[in-house]
Amino acid sequence: MASRKEVADLAGVSEATVSRVLNGVGPIKEETRRKVLEASEKLGYVPSAIARSFARSKSGNLGVVLPYVPKAHLFSAYFFSEMLSGIGNKARDSGMDLLVMFRSPGEVMNYADLFRRQKVDACIILGAKDDHGELAAMQQLQEEGHPFCVMNQHFAGESFLEVDADHVEGSRLAVHHLTEQGYRKIAFLNGPDSYSNSQERLLGVQIGLKEAGMELDPDLLLEGNYSRRSGVEAAATIAARLDEIDAVFAANDRMAIGVMHGLRERGIEVQNFPAFVGYDDSDAAEMSVPPLTSVRVPFYEMGELAVSKLIHGSLVGSASTEASGSPSEWPRELLPTELIIRASSIRK
Amino acid sequence: MASRKEVADLAGVSEATVSRVLNGVGPIKEETRRKVLEASEKLGYVPSAIARSFARSKSGNLGVVLPYVPKAHLFSAYFFSEMLSGIGNKARDSGMDLLVMFRSPGEVMNYADLFRRQKVDACIILGAKDDHGELAAMQQLQEEGHPFCVMNQHFAGESFLEVDADHVEGSRLAVHHLTEQGYRKIAFLNGPDSYSNSQERLLGVQIGLKEAGMELDPDLLLEGNYSRRSGVEAAATIAARLDEIDAVFAANDRMAIGVMHGLRERGIEVQNFPAFVGYDDSDAAEMSVPPLTSVRVPFYEMGELAVSKLIHGSLVGSASTEASGSPSEWPRELLPTELIIRASSIRK
Repeated sequence: MASRKEVADLAGVSEATVSRVLNGVGPIKEETRRKVLEASEKLGYVPSAIARSFARSKSGNLGVVLPYVPKAHLFSAYFFSEMLSGIGNKARDSGMDLLVMFRSPGEVMNYADLFRRQKVDACIILGAKDDHGELAAMQQLQEEGHPFCVMNQHFAGESFLEVDADHVEGSRLAVHHLTEQGYRKIAFLNGPDSYSNSQERLLGVQIGLKEAGMELDPDLLLEGNYSRRSGVEAAATIAARLDEIDAVFAANDRMAIGVMHGLRERGIEVQNFPAFVGYDDSDAAEMSVPPLTSVRVPFYEMGELAVSKLIHGSLVGSASTEASGSPSEWPRELLPTELIIRASSIRK
Repeated sequence: MASRKEVADLAGVSEATVSRVLNGVGPIKEETRRKVLEASEKLGYVPSAIARSFARSKSGNLGVVLPYVPKAHLFSAYFFSEMLSGIGNKARDSGMDLLVMFRSPGEVMNYADLFRRQKVDACIILGAKDDHGELAAMQQLQEEGHPFCVMNQHFAGESFLEVDADHVEGSRLAVHHLTEQGYRKIAFLNGPDSYSNSQERLLGVQIGLKEAGMELDPDLLLEGNYSRRSGVEAAATIAARLDEIDAVFAANDRMAIGVMHGLRERGIEVQNFPAFVGYDDSDAAEMSVPPLTSVRVPFYEMGELAVSKLIHGSLVGSASTEASGSPSEWPRELLPTELIIRASSIRK
């Protein structure tokens, strides 16, 4: 590959002039500009992106931070892959590349360092946990004025830019759908309390039951960890108390499907299943037998929205030309959820 | 954030000395080194990654190029997400970040430019098509000596580093499993011929049938496009000729499940289904009712292998210390496939 010096020699100018022309810096005579561009083209000279980025202080990269989940095939998890598809689509439209970064086990990510080292121009944080170190790292980002967005986790008392879905309403809809059909003994299989998403689902369930003049029976509140296996395990409890349970609402589809499998393994026939409602409306819900009623979460649109908000507010990407406020001025944004009714929850 | 000048002032040295210390370039007195490091730490100075990369000519990024698929939620496709999980896992272990890049519609990616612009140190190409422009772009990469790996597509006559699975054997196993049980009227729903993967599946089917003294009936060779919808569409043909067909082998699980759904929509009961074998052994195969026999492809391991090969041969990443030949010296690497037998294909 040609060097800057060769371009300068061919154009009959200094190397500094070559840089100024190619970086569009400072006034340059039109004839000089033309000579440099012709020489660059002739020699196939491409200025280093790193050098150009250094000049502009922009990497052209949108960072996405993924959680550390041991042994998990992270990209294969429905909600991650859908959010990433939305993020990727919007990034592509904005001419940005996606820099995917992985958390290390037992280590708090130094987010601010990513910006200082100019690896990214903006950052989306997935799978954050509400612990002290993580919170401090994000507060630092906020203080230093770096554009970032947290998805699927709420940090109460902070003014972070957050994009999520309305899980309170989604869960209320699920319970309302069950009580409306006369189901009364509704078991709720939730995920761990450390996720704000789980807390919101619980609140929605309580509201839904209250609307029907009911209360959540503590004996019917079960906890899994959002894995299919934890659904299979919960099936033991549910199978043992099938006469006390006429419907199961699970906090995601994987657990709902796990419960169904667990019941099948115990020889319980589909016609004796309780009603089932899942959550996420993943591919698996539609393919399940019986097809699974589920709360649809617009993960793809959430991903697109997070990128749009970052680009809008931070001069990131090629399309934006003006900053319009700092992330801290935006509220937390919740996209609507929707109940998709299928055979699993319809009273025969 | 502190500047290099402030660090230099505090340490009582020149800015150039600060750079030399922090980049580990040239001989430096131990006392000077200590003073610079102390001043850097005190002021929280982090040298720009772009500046450091420029010095080292390494970005620390592993590039992954994704195909352009209109409207598709690409990260949600089983085989992409699994390969990306494997790639990401290995990249994390090697201390590299993943730079995900998107092809634009109707445009050949200028791969070599990514290296020249120092966006990536090595590159994995997914979803490549065997067309003239794409081939020329890869040949250029090869000529310029940039480390890259093509996954899931074979370019005959080239010596590209390629990682794939043994789809000929996988398909042969599927057909053998069916003929062994006495199935004779086997329909084969393949994907488009433009993918080397489809051609390999067809070859495997022909070999498997030949071993049983049979030949592929051209009337039983159907073509879909690897989508579930194309499986649903093929169900029309299969339903109309159910007396001539006693087994269906589909080139991926999505199409197999699509055919099942299409038959159900036509009121055909599970007990009257032909035998089914899918391909990929995705999550959906296990969750399908009846559970779907499928050919397992080690996508995750393929992703890990591609990264290992690039790191091994090209000084990419932190662990490697010595180059051991150019990618062109390696053969195409095929990982083994395996038949996972479930209820869908077992003769009652």
